[in-house]
Amino acid sequence: MTRAARTIRPAALRGAGWALAAIASAMPALARDALPSWTDGPARQRIVSFVQDVSAPGGRDFVAPAERIAVFDNDGTLWTEQPLYFQLAYVLDRVKAMAPSHPDWQTKQPFKAALEGDARALAAGGDHALMELLMATHAGNTTEEFQSSVRDWLATARHPKFGRPYTELVFQPQLELMDYLRANGFKVYIVSGGGIEFMRAFAERVYGVPPEQVIGSSIRTRYELRDGKPALVRLLEIDFIDDKAGKPVGINQHIGRRPILAFGNSDGDFEMLEWTTAGAGPRLGLLVHHDDAAREFAYDRDSSIGSLDRGLDEAGRRGWVVVSMRNDWRAVYPPVEARN
Amino acid sequence: MTRAARTIRPAALRGAGWALAAIASAMPALARDALPSWTDGPARQRIVSFVQDVSAPGGRDFVAPAERIAVFDNDGTLWTEQPLYFQLAYVLDRVKAMAPSHPDWQTKQPFKAALEGDARALAAGGDHALMELLMATHAGNTTEEFQSSVRDWLATARHPKFGRPYTELVFQPQLELMDYLRANGFKVYIVSGGGIEFMRAFAERVYGVPPEQVIGSSIRTRYELRDGKPALVRLLEIDFIDDKAGKPVGINQHIGRRPILAFGNSDGDFEMLEWTTAGAGPRLGLLVHHDDAAREFAYDRDSSIGSLDRGLDEAGRRGWVVVSMRNDWRAVYPPVEARN
Repeated sequence: MTRAARTIRPAALRGAGWALAAIASAMPALARDALPSWTDGPARQRIVSFVQDVSAPGGRDFVAPAERIAVFDNDGTLWTEQPLYFQLAYVLDRVKAMAPSHPDWQTKQPFKAALEGDARALAAGGDHALMELLMATHAGNTTEEFQSSVRDWLATARHPKFGRPYTELVFQPQLELMDYLRANGFKVYIVSGGGIEFMRAFAERVYGVPPEQVIGSSIRTRYELRDGKPALVRLLEIDFIDDKAGKPVGINQHIGRRPILAFGNSDGDFEMLEWTTAGAGPRLGLLVHHDDAAREFAYDRDSSIGSLDRGLDEAGRRGWVVVSMRNDWRAVYPPVEARN
Repeated sequence: MTRAARTIRPAALRGAGWALAAIASAMPALARDALPSWTDGPARQRIVSFVQDVSAPGGRDFVAPAERIAVFDNDGTLWTEQPLYFQLAYVLDRVKAMAPSHPDWQTKQPFKAALEGDARALAAGGDHALMELLMATHAGNTTEEFQSSVRDWLATARHPKFGRPYTELVFQPQLELMDYLRANGFKVYIVSGGGIEFMRAFAERVYGVPPEQVIGSSIRTRYELRDGKPALVRLLEIDFIDDKAGKPVGINQHIGRRPILAFGNSDGDFEMLEWTTAGAGPRLGLLVHHDDAAREFAYDRDSSIGSLDRGLDEAGRRGWVVVSMRNDWRAVYPPVEARN
């Protein structure tokens, strides 16, 4: 499969994906071919030997395919999260798009700050201000309307630093890793603090992760008839925050099994890695370290977004792999040609 | 596969199940062989033509495998629910087992009524009393401890009418139907008002439905370290009720796609069938009608458990199939020999 095919999946292929994966898993997947964007360093070696160990029939560390569950954080792990979470960029753009129907927003905080791009005033409002913006842009519509809105936005919005669509700022080495895991019988889940319906709007097309394998934060929905047609309406109420100690809770709620591989990038993923790697048998915990200012961004302990502090301190003694974006990844993003 | 193999799945086979299913789905599954416990009546004919229509490549009603989602209620649809929900039998047995550590229960309602088997006093306490018993027996332990407790109970408890283990009171025609659907590329989910962790304790072994395909009611859990080991602790708080209008909500939360087939048996399943069959393209809604006092139980509109009233009234005009247990099913339960 070419790199382009890996990112942009034709609809026709998607349906057959599960059968192809099953057939593929019957053949030993060659890691050298599978992970071309990973340098031949210790991170790649740990991944490959783990996957080989758990999928070798009769081996000491063999794990039945049904138990080969891998969980990936999304923001900062599968795609970029700077200079602000992409879902937050959606929120700010939606506030602008909705402003004509809400004249009071011109003078009312936090909407005024959002409309004026006043980051300082926004920050002063804290979590409460963000929640207000989130609810104004995420609730009141149906699940289908919300996903359409996200798809429309993704089709036109561009990242401020790279000028590319947000869905092209996914990490090429991770696309390869997810394909490699699936080819070896793994079921790959996303477990993110981001909104579950926001991610479902693109996860299947971009990552090959179907909606039923996306776990995230959610707002409550209510089933009702709208003009006689059933709909799920998104309410002004948080249902679940899939972050920090919420991640093992969300994993249990959706999957009901403990994963054997967890990949994150921030202290919001700490408990997910802790829960995963505390299980019996072979386990692998990994963290992306954003140390690549030239190709992406460099940040860790002191970042207000995606802070990685405790994870860096404890990775060594817990046996977690810290993946250096600068040293372990040959490429960060898919090539631009992939779009065409 | 023999009937026995269908019910009692050896652990060794389970791991390979997904690959076998993928291979099997490449061959046209013969309905005559697949549904031996269904009589050759209109219900079976509707099922078979629906499955053939959605899985015929190039056909007008073809549905991509990824969208072939089937949802089954559990109590009264996949196994018996009389004379009381099996999970409630677990609750009452647990109260008895836990009573020695709770001397106050001898005089305190609703525990006193539960210990004395005083159905009238229990009923007088209403939903509040049931909730109190549920919480006393379902919370405080870890998810793993709870599942062990359910498995231990299932291994020894016997149904009061049939004298068989509860997990043998599953409906043989439904086991065959789930196998038939999976052989035709469907992903089969359970969507039940019953407890998600209660069902996960046996769903994979008994139905071939893995934990990540079980949706149910839940209580909140909290991630914490117990003696330095991570655990998910079950709290004294309801998280979600997966019944009536909650079923489409639970389906969306877990699956993120609208099913194309829904099978229930009571008005608690009404909205699930409504949501499923209101979608575009081919859809199938089915209801088990418990009209077989000789082989199982006969009840519908006036039953306090599994009442089917509105569903009977509206099935015809909505195109839902009412499956008569008496007329459409040759056998109700797996043969007793299956246990050995």
